Amino acid sequence: MDFTLKIMGTASAMSVIGRFQSAHVLTVHGRSSLIDCGEGTQRQLLRFGVPLMKIDNIYISHIHGDHIFGLFGLLSTIGMLGRTAGINIYAPENFGPILKFFMSYYGAGLNFEVNHVPLTMKEPELIFETRTLSVYAFPLNHKIETFGFRFQEKTPMLNVHKDAISRWGLSLTEIGTLKRGENVQRPDGTVIPVSQAAYRPYVPRSYAYCSDTAPFPELAQWVSGVDLLYHETTYLAGMEDHARDRNHSTTLDAARCALEAGVGKLIIGHYSSRCQDASLYQAECRTVFPNTFAASDGDVFDLPFVKQNTYLCGDSTQDDGRQD
Amino acid sequence: MDFTLKIMGTASAMSVIGRFQSAHVLTVHGRSSLIDCGEGTQRQLLRFGVPLMKIDNIYISHIHGDHIFGLFGLLSTIGMLGRTAGINIYAPENFGPILKFFMSYYGAGLNFEVNHVPLTMKEPELIFETRTLSVYAFPLNHKIETFGFRFQEKTPMLNVHKDAISRWGLSLTEIGTLKRGENVQRPDGTVIPVSQAAYRPYVPRSYAYCSDTAPFPELAQWVSGVDLLYHETTYLAGMEDHARDRNHSTTLDAARCALEAGVGKLIIGHYSSRCQDASLYQAECRTVFPNTFAASDGDVFDLPFVKQNTYLCGDSTQDDGRQD
Repeated sequence: MDFTLKIMGTASAMSVIGRFQSAHVLTVHGRSSLIDCGEGTQRQLLRFGVPLMKIDNIYISHIHGDHIFGLFGLLSTIGMLGRTAGINIYAPENFGPILKFFMSYYGAGLNFEVNHVPLTMKEPELIFETRTLSVYAFPLNHKIETFGFRFQEKTPMLNVHKDAISRWGLSLTEIGTLKRGENVQRPDGTVIPVSQAAYRPYVPRSYAYCSDTAPFPELAQWVSGVDLLYHETTYLAGMEDHARDRNHSTTLDAARCALEAGVGKLIIGHYSSRCQDASLYQAECRTVFPNTFAASDGDVFDLPFVKQNTYLCGDSTQDDGRQD
Repeated sequence: MDFTLKIMGTASAMSVIGRFQSAHVLTVHGRSSLIDCGEGTQRQLLRFGVPLMKIDNIYISHIHGDHIFGLFGLLSTIGMLGRTAGINIYAPENFGPILKFFMSYYGAGLNFEVNHVPLTMKEPELIFETRTLSVYAFPLNHKIETFGFRFQEKTPMLNVHKDAISRWGLSLTEIGTLKRGENVQRPDGTVIPVSQAAYRPYVPRSYAYCSDTAPFPELAQWVSGVDLLYHETTYLAGMEDHARDRNHSTTLDAARCALEAGVGKLIIGHYSSRCQDASLYQAECRTVFPNTFAASDGDVFDLPFVKQNTYLCGDSTQDDGRQD
């Protein structure tokens, strides 16, 4: 029941020694998503022990080279490794001709379908889901069409305590009612409150990826409450003018977003080649949002699976009725 | 007066840990040529201290991804570094649409011309020259259109020894005659032999790049006598069938070519991901051609500048009359 983020690259547009370009891998319940794919990503995946064949979906924020130039090599390699399962690439519309061109030259060697799902939304939209995970995309504010992604473990269905079953002699129908989050109303007027009989088996986890973007008002709301927020910090605070010119963020922009959104932890990266000392970026963020971590290539953020084997009392999360 | 080959990558099509894909840099008299450009080449150039801005020309053997997927990132990066000097890319005809597509998406950010020089020859042809260097391209025998390259330092003009000038009291006209490699014939019948008055100031050096290719009869002649021959050895000798199926070479193919061509040193690379132990490839080659060196990423082959301040006697090289 893993929920693990691995950072493959933390450089921005200019190649530097010691940092590859943007690529994250999020593994949830054994299935991996690749988010952006800068040049050399396949090499970083090998280096950091990410099985290339376990990548289910690919999410591309935008078509700037430092976010996609590793994709062609990666697709070729997993083709050579014998992949047959199709792969969806969620990417802006202008990615379409790039993929089409690549496939026209190199597609013959691939024994799997590569399907582009174009992103066009103006506000968060569900773009993919499994039994346990929902993925939303939302627009960012960059020079070209760019999207962020929110990966949300689904709220698990309620469980009913064994104690409650024996105490109240619950029938299967009554257990079903409680699992749906409803109180049981017996014909004799007895009410068995869901808050005293059921529990949520684990705390759902979440991660949002925001790169590249200038700050904008809606973003904090769109990533509100995530456990992990990755937000680009191309520039230190003193280079705000550069950031504005280039539709990027400073350390303080990212930290303010994290604070306003009430996230658990802020992860930063996409450092300008002008300053590669990540500790400076981290220190600036922490003046606003103390739980900031400046990422380096290979960093792993493992969100533990937290069992919640207690009654619902005080749990404000309501089950959304989805089966997982 | 350098003539230095730096190996950026020695893997073949499949990405492996510890080896990047094909890219060589040859620096002759301070000007660098990049030969092939696998994914991550720009990172290797940084890592091994090759100044990105000193790359004059790019030579592409063929359009398989492991030979070109680093090109787009490299061009973008040297654009960001402020390059304004145009760059020629010598590559097969089918590279044209790839470059055109890249430029249509990413060319706006480049402040320099990128010019594709298509290669179509059926036998060695001069494709580029400077005062000191000639570059020839020739076809290889691969699954798709593929070319090898021969980099030949020009034979330097003869110098005339100071001793000879004083001994014979040579006039400027007579010195010019000797520098052109001709004997001086004086009206009184005296002959001043060029072999006793002039010398070649240094030994011209040469390097040939052959990847990817199956063996074929003409190749040894086309690379005859080079000081350094790089020849792919994708497979060990026991995998000759694989090599034939894929239009690649084994260790013994490469070594036989080196032997027949009478080269100075054989450098091998482009190892299959099935076997990454370069010492095995080297050992097999050495059974046929002892002066074989199995390259690893970052290896440097420096051909020393050999002064030849002796008389021409015994020098079979004839000056070709070109000014250098």
